[in-house]
Amino acid sequence: MAAIDLGSNSFHMVVARQAQGEVRILESLSEKVQLGAGLGPDNQLDEAAQERALECLGRFAQRIAGVPRGNVRVVGTNTLRMARNSNRFIARAEAQLGHDIEVVAGREEARLIFLGVAHSLADDAGTRLVVDIGGGSTELIIGERFEATETESLHMGCVSYGQRFFPEGRITEAAFRKAVTAARQEVLSIETNYRRLGWAQAVGASGTVKAIAQVCEENGWSVEGVSLEGLEKARRKVIKAGNSDALSLKGLREDRKPIFASGLAILLGIFEQLGLTHMQVSSGALREGLLYDLLGRFSHEDVRERSIQAILNRYHVERAQAERVSTTARGLHDQVAATWGLDDERAADTLRWGALLHELGLAVSHSQFHKHGAYLVTHSDLPGFSREEQQAVALLVRGHRRKLPLSSLAECPEDEQTRWLRLCLILRLACRLHHARNDAPVPPLTLSADGRALTLAFPAGWLEEHPLTQADLEQEQEYFQAADYTLTVL
Amino acid sequence: MAAIDLGSNSFHMVVARQAQGEVRILESLSEKVQLGAGLGPDNQLDEAAQERALECLGRFAQRIAGVPRGNVRVVGTNTLRMARNSNRFIARAEAQLGHDIEVVAGREEARLIFLGVAHSLADDAGTRLVVDIGGGSTELIIGERFEATETESLHMGCVSYGQRFFPEGRITEAAFRKAVTAARQEVLSIETNYRRLGWAQAVGASGTVKAIAQVCEENGWSVEGVSLEGLEKARRKVIKAGNSDALSLKGLREDRKPIFASGLAILLGIFEQLGLTHMQVSSGALREGLLYDLLGRFSHEDVRERSIQAILNRYHVERAQAERVSTTARGLHDQVAATWGLDDERAADTLRWGALLHELGLAVSHSQFHKHGAYLVTHSDLPGFSREEQQAVALLVRGHRRKLPLSSLAECPEDEQTRWLRLCLILRLACRLHHARNDAPVPPLTLSADGRALTLAFPAGWLEEHPLTQADLEQEQEYFQAADYTLTVL
Repeated sequence: MAAIDLGSNSFHMVVARQAQGEVRILESLSEKVQLGAGLGPDNQLDEAAQERALECLGRFAQRIAGVPRGNVRVVGTNTLRMARNSNRFIARAEAQLGHDIEVVAGREEARLIFLGVAHSLADDAGTRLVVDIGGGSTELIIGERFEATETESLHMGCVSYGQRFFPEGRITEAAFRKAVTAARQEVLSIETNYRRLGWAQAVGASGTVKAIAQVCEENGWSVEGVSLEGLEKARRKVIKAGNSDALSLKGLREDRKPIFASGLAILLGIFEQLGLTHMQVSSGALREGLLYDLLGRFSHEDVRERSIQAILNRYHVERAQAERVSTTARGLHDQVAATWGLDDERAADTLRWGALLHELGLAVSHSQFHKHGAYLVTHSDLPGFSREEQQAVALLVRGHRRKLPLSSLAECPEDEQTRWLRLCLILRLACRLHHARNDAPVPPLTLSADGRALTLAFPAGWLEEHPLTQADLEQEQEYFQAADYTLTVL
Repeated sequence: MAAIDLGSNSFHMVVARQAQGEVRILESLSEKVQLGAGLGPDNQLDEAAQERALECLGRFAQRIAGVPRGNVRVVGTNTLRMARNSNRFIARAEAQLGHDIEVVAGREEARLIFLGVAHSLADDAGTRLVVDIGGGSTELIIGERFEATETESLHMGCVSYGQRFFPEGRITEAAFRKAVTAARQEVLSIETNYRRLGWAQAVGASGTVKAIAQVCEENGWSVEGVSLEGLEKARRKVIKAGNSDALSLKGLREDRKPIFASGLAILLGIFEQLGLTHMQVSSGALREGLLYDLLGRFSHEDVRERSIQAILNRYHVERAQAERVSTTARGLHDQVAATWGLDDERAADTLRWGALLHELGLAVSHSQFHKHGAYLVTHSDLPGFSREEQQAVALLVRGHRRKLPLSSLAECPEDEQTRWLRLCLILRLACRLHHARNDAPVPPLTLSADGRALTLAFPAGWLEEHPLTQADLEQEQEYFQAADYTLTVL
């Protein structure tokens, strides 16, 4: 197995072997790509940063050439969430790497980090606060054992704060104070809630926290990990240096200097605002979390299934109807999966999730509920899901009734458009067959596909006895045409 | 009091007097404006229809010249919901009428119809199914006494179906069957749910149902109201006539002829799909519902308050924070209401609702939650609210943090933009003052306004002790500038 984290500061890769439900790390690589530094004020990722990233991925690709496709997870975080031109970059990176890239939401990143950290520590500490200072965002998570209960992703990171408060590496006392205050403001909005939950132990992950801990330890400012006293001593040294180039601190690696001051300010802000005095350091991080999450999927503990159940509950979706449509959709899918290039687990999962959630938007309003449902799927935190997976499910929800959402489809990844549209067409048929929302059984159906032509055959006489279904399918024939597909009903 | 219903087929006005919690109708007027017929395929309301409407409103305006502003409610329904150019028309109509026009959502229309019908009938029938076939939409409601439990607004009406199935009045058997099937398809999706709830009595409101009942009665096809047998006999007569002009039925008024066939097809579809055999007729309708709803607001039974409480519950909004922000916002509002032209109940209500709902979007995701909240406020069914009221609250929710939503503001009614922006600025200050989300009291504040300049004064020394609030307000100063407002903090 392998996991790659396309962080805003560094790219990390781990290669591991699964052994009896455990993950054994075989190799671990990091490269300081500084992808986030290539993000301009217009949120365009510049060409230089893209080149740095692609070169690094070329090296990673060699290393994982032998790992099967489903066993590699590649995750993009804040910079790829922000970049307006991320789609094009991702297509290039996927070609370079030979594996799909998932961009995950901030909270999903936080959940994966906690999972990685939890597996790196002894299972005895009660409630944990985990802090991961990245290049573009900082995750704060509270949880117990392997389960995150609160996940937050705050808009501050050592690369973005460096550019904002310490341009060209200049460090002044006033700028440092501003950076700490800004970090405290970010933490302020979650403080009350986090303090109410409480924690027995604060743990830091990420290179930034590790670098600060190393400085604290080597200078004798802490026995182990980060201490508040150490942070304050480091602050004085940093301000005195006045510039990141001039910074000389025992234990500080050369390549860490440019982002040391900003990382320090963020961590100090978190310490001050949450009243921390000590933080231990974990070697676990996002990439290990990815591996354990993958392991869960192998062993049928797919976090995504729990997310689907949770959102069905939250919005009081009528289960019976959702299950009916899902079952019928699956039956139709099985008949055309091979001819339509949909005979893989990903297609089947997407269709099932779309079927289960297609009525989600009714919680908002009946009017245009397919649009409300798509909005909720797109914007909700769904643990375990990548953005692209959410986009696929949202498209199915959006397109399960009324006009086919061809303009939304055009914004989807090009290599998925045909597949997603076909899943959408299958879902529509299943919905029409359950229009009456009751337990009346669907008759045995034959669905066959040939390119852009779909043929649905009913038992003789059935349609004549069900004129409303017939009328529904006649409408579908018109809707299908808009996408250049034909539906023949026999 | 007066209520005006700007229906897609007819405009109706009632003038009434309130006497001991009862509404006594003094006068009732209807004019067949056929506003819906002026809606082209591009959803533009044509000039001829606008002229017809304005002339009618001119006549209505004379009649209600003496009624005080807050005692008149004017409501637009399906055609004004659909028309892309409704904003301009509404501005002209408001000028003509001298009163504000509220456009209400389909479900709100359904709720008001039920209220009007319930007050027109003896209070003894148990659960009722109420059907109102309008020009552009048909409402089906289930409820008991004065309370609607299920409200649906379906996309079918006698004007729109007339254009679609019987163009130029031509009626064929095939077209009639298509129209009935289309109506049944619409009803199909709510059938199971409605049958599960059940009803002891079916009641029809609206001119369409009344006209059909009259035909049934005068031809001896029913003793009273509409019978299934009568519908079928009328259908044969209508198809035989072949054209609405040639239609001659005892009891059918000349002006009802053009929309009789389409109304009949819709009602027949409803009867067949829901298994009805008889429907009694109520004289109560949307306009009477408006009067009783207004009466409720006078006597502090404002349905809108219940809607706010319901949505706060549904999305698990943290009440303590919502109330804190609301209280502080109110205190700030009181100090500048007079100078900023906000010293009316509508402004105070809007601010309170915005404050209570500002964190609504957290139910979806923390990231961009102000946008999610605005989406939910815009699209949710909120009984008692007009669309404009929802738009105002949504704008406040959208604009309570981060950048001011100036482009959304530009889409708001022109005469409200300044007021809504100012409410938004007040709400922002209240939110910043409760950034820490705890019970720490807000110090005594002085807020004063002078045109586009706002000055917020703290007790001496307080701000120095609260550097995060100071930093928050410094950020606000920048945000205010984008709207050409200045914030001075003392």
